[in-house]
Amino acid sequence: MREIITLKWEKGNLLLLDQTLLPNTVTYATCKTLEDVYQAIQTMIVRGAPAIGVSAGYGMVLAANAFDGTDTAAFMDFYREQGEYLKSSRPTAVNLMWAVDRMVERAEALTGEGQPLEAVRKGLEAEAVAIHEEDKQTNRNIGTNLLSLLKDGDTVLTHCNAGSLATSEYGTALSVFYMAQEKGMNIKAFADETRPRLQGANLTAFELVEHGVDVTLICDNMAAVVLSQGKINALIVGCDRVAANGDTANKIGTFSVSVLANQFHVPVYIAAPTTTIDMECPTGNEIPIEERSREEVLRINGEYIAPKEVKTYNLAFDVTPAEYITAIVTEKGIVYPPFRDNLEILMKK
Amino acid sequence: MREIITLKWEKGNLLLLDQTLLPNTVTYATCKTLEDVYQAIQTMIVRGAPAIGVSAGYGMVLAANAFDGTDTAAFMDFYREQGEYLKSSRPTAVNLMWAVDRMVERAEALTGEGQPLEAVRKGLEAEAVAIHEEDKQTNRNIGTNLLSLLKDGDTVLTHCNAGSLATSEYGTALSVFYMAQEKGMNIKAFADETRPRLQGANLTAFELVEHGVDVTLICDNMAAVVLSQGKINALIVGCDRVAANGDTANKIGTFSVSVLANQFHVPVYIAAPTTTIDMECPTGNEIPIEERSREEVLRINGEYIAPKEVKTYNLAFDVTPAEYITAIVTEKGIVYPPFRDNLEILMKK
Repeated sequence: MREIITLKWEKGNLLLLDQTLLPNTVTYATCKTLEDVYQAIQTMIVRGAPAIGVSAGYGMVLAANAFDGTDTAAFMDFYREQGEYLKSSRPTAVNLMWAVDRMVERAEALTGEGQPLEAVRKGLEAEAVAIHEEDKQTNRNIGTNLLSLLKDGDTVLTHCNAGSLATSEYGTALSVFYMAQEKGMNIKAFADETRPRLQGANLTAFELVEHGVDVTLICDNMAAVVLSQGKINALIVGCDRVAANGDTANKIGTFSVSVLANQFHVPVYIAAPTTTIDMECPTGNEIPIEERSREEVLRINGEYIAPKEVKTYNLAFDVTPAEYITAIVTEKGIVYPPFRDNLEILMKK
Repeated sequence: MREIITLKWEKGNLLLLDQTLLPNTVTYATCKTLEDVYQAIQTMIVRGAPAIGVSAGYGMVLAANAFDGTDTAAFMDFYREQGEYLKSSRPTAVNLMWAVDRMVERAEALTGEGQPLEAVRKGLEAEAVAIHEEDKQTNRNIGTNLLSLLKDGDTVLTHCNAGSLATSEYGTALSVFYMAQEKGMNIKAFADETRPRLQGANLTAFELVEHGVDVTLICDNMAAVVLSQGKINALIVGCDRVAANGDTANKIGTFSVSVLANQFHVPVYIAAPTTTIDMECPTGNEIPIEERSREEVLRINGEYIAPKEVKTYNLAFDVTPAEYITAIVTEKGIVYPPFRDNLEILMKK
């Protein structure tokens, strides 16, 4: 089994597994500067909200190390400017903003204490490592909570990639397979290929195979057959944003497969770090949905699969209404309906 | 608009639109011998049950023309042998068997009347043309019956390709769009891309664009969003085989999209020539489902999209249980539940 680690902090450099080349090539990109991290986020060498957040933390360490001078006020001006620049690499990524802001606030605190820049740099590196370690622990806790909903020998269907490759270590949805391995339980996987970008095939199938999980790849449209045959004990997916009423935005296709799971009495679990739960957003109707390039639907591996003149409708995400969701599984615990009340209780913990 | 005709009988040759090269190249393969037709069916230059049946009829004309001699008994031996050979080009295609048998029976009748071989050949050509014309009329009648279920301005979602390219002229499911054009009605289309072989993208989007139908291509997993948004007035699909109770085998993904249509109160219509209704088959459980090569899921345009080691589950077809079907629309009329009784009445007409 190869070691598949999405990101590593080694000798003052950030190493990122280049996800644009998977599954055919496994290679790491080395980021020595904030500009390198900016480019890696923008070109999707690194993707997945938690992994972007952790990368941003280290990017801000690289920025601090690059500052030339000893004046802390000048440093802070530089640092805030670098942070704003890094945020612009993927304007919609909530974790990116959160991680940059956390690093800037830490720098403000350290310089405010009158620490010399060398100590500030050390403190910022410690903060980035803390973000990284916290993400690992969040993954593990979500996995443990998910596993409590299953029994040994169960099979889980998943959609898109909410795995190692989207986070620091175990992933959110896919952490259930890795925690099962740690505990000596056998949980098998079915993975939707997840058109149009095929993250289920490129990424989920790849990382589960690499980690020795028994995984079967299907096309998205095969879900009804597989679910109706009783092959699946639970549908577990990640999420981009959970509204206060439990409506959940996630990769396009999550809504379809959730409806099908309900039809065949298979529970639907959303793996959600509490950072993705947005209590300011009342329902799914308020979540903006990005419509992406028609080329994603029209071309595969560069070749047209349909006439160029055809219209397309390519939403990147969809919103699964709360009524189709059995439970929302966070690092702090499992939330059941009524979601509006119970998410509020959880978020106050 | 280019003329897109799946098959033509011209100057004693069968011209077949090469469907393996769509949508990027439009070119015709010329079949001058039964062997050419055999190869065209086997390599899927021609596909779709009705189109294969019509091609087989003309293939049997080419066989008759190739016979060297004047002895009618020797001719019939040769003819039956050629027919058995042609049947082996796609052993599961019901219309292929039916068309070959019809041509052989016609040859038996004509030789039985003591006609000279030249007259037999003329009679066989007339029979193949009759099969062709009957298929065109069946398409038109199905389209007219489908159209009676819609109103001007409606939008229809379809899956896979049950269109011109699968038949002689208007198709089964897609005939509704062409009959609408004839009658000056505006019916718009949404087409599922239909993984793994992408017939919705390659073929349905292609032929609807060519015929000037307003068509929007979506990935299969986008159906829940589109159906829930009220964009779709009916789901119309073709079929490979309808059991006596109404259970319907069709391209993989039909079951998923039919469940979703039901969930969002969109009617599901099966476009079914009566030749596909199998009263000897009591339910969908008795319909054998072909599992196809894993390479269809793992590779697109020759390139791997997933690790080679991953398991796959690649059913070519699925069976939509009758409970999800609103009506079965044939050339003889529209059948509503209870299907077992009403299909029996229809088939006796």
